[in-house]
Amino acid sequence: MKYGIAIFPSKTVQDQANALRKRYDTRYSLIPPHITLKYPFETNSEEIDEVVQELHKIAGSVDPFYIHINKVSTFEPVTNTIYLKIEPIEQLKTINEQLQQGIFENNQKHSFVPHITIAQDLEHDEFSDIVGRLKMEGFAIKDYIDRFQLLYELDNGSWTVYETFLLGKE
Amino acid sequence: MKYGIAIFPSKTVQDQANALRKRYDTRYSLIPPHITLKYPFETNSEEIDEVVQELHKIAGSVDPFYIHINKVSTFEPVTNTIYLKIEPIEQLKTINEQLQQGIFENNQKHSFVPHITIAQDLEHDEFSDIVGRLKMEGFAIKDYIDRFQLLYELDNGSWTVYETFLLGKE
Repeated sequence: MKYGIAIFPSKTVQDQANALRKRYDTRYSLIPPHITLKYPFETNSEEIDEVVQELHKIAGSVDPFYIHINKVSTFEPVTNTIYLKIEPIEQLKTINEQLQQGIFENNQKHSFVPHITIAQDLEHDEFSDIVGRLKMEGFAIKDYIDRFQLLYELDNGSWTVYETFLLGKE
Repeated sequence: MKYGIAIFPSKTVQDQANALRKRYDTRYSLIPPHITLKYPFETNSEEIDEVVQELHKIAGSVDPFYIHINKVSTFEPVTNTIYLKIEPIEQLKTINEQLQQGIFENNQKHSFVPHITIAQDLEHDEFSDIVGRLKMEGFAIKDYIDRFQLLYELDNGSWTVYETFLLGKE
């Protein structure tokens, strides 16, 4: 089964992201707005208990924190994904690092860029228009993060939460 | 904010339900296949901690259990919703009852009928066709339930998981 690990920001931030995703993100209906901590990895039903135990440990070792979003950015020229850029913060980096070592395979192809995707798979002209507009708009979002989620993928490409992990508490 | 409480069955059962929901359920993209334990209720950010504490207690008081699904049924003439009928089982009834008392308002209009919705808002002719076909098909599903989820609704009508509660463990 394919699992992934992500943070859902607050409802306010999810609503704000969805207002854009609805029009511009082909994966809008498959998962709520999120910050990916670990990209999809295969785990079978025997190993999942060990994964869960390890995630409790990792969650317990990091206290809740605030994230800040001040602008949109893109992954071009690699992909034309547009995202809300999360300002670099030690706690996010720590969690992400711990999810690429020990019992976890390092399945991260690029350096960790925490973000919330708001658009992907756009035509080139549309991409330029949207990036231009959103860069002018500006963002000033502060959000409190106190948990992350282990999810699994269904056959239709959507994701269901398996378990929640509370930061600084386990 | 509007919260709800539900069980996600296993991936296998969710995939089976989604194969039908994709064509017949207008709410297909808003939430994964689920068994509703408590219908949507309003809670503010000050009260949510108390709700979470109470849910830990309730989850801890009920051991994991198996559900059995042997047929489809409908809520007609009240609505034309078609669902996978969960055979009555004490544990489900116990959890549901505890979610309608104490700090929880009883917001259940009808008696508790545990089910997984697979179709709703159908035209009458389509409804009759589908019910007829699915009743002939027959179902024999057994599924292990060891957790439930507290979710909140986003502005677009979709649901995000807030926290997971493990049965018999808290």
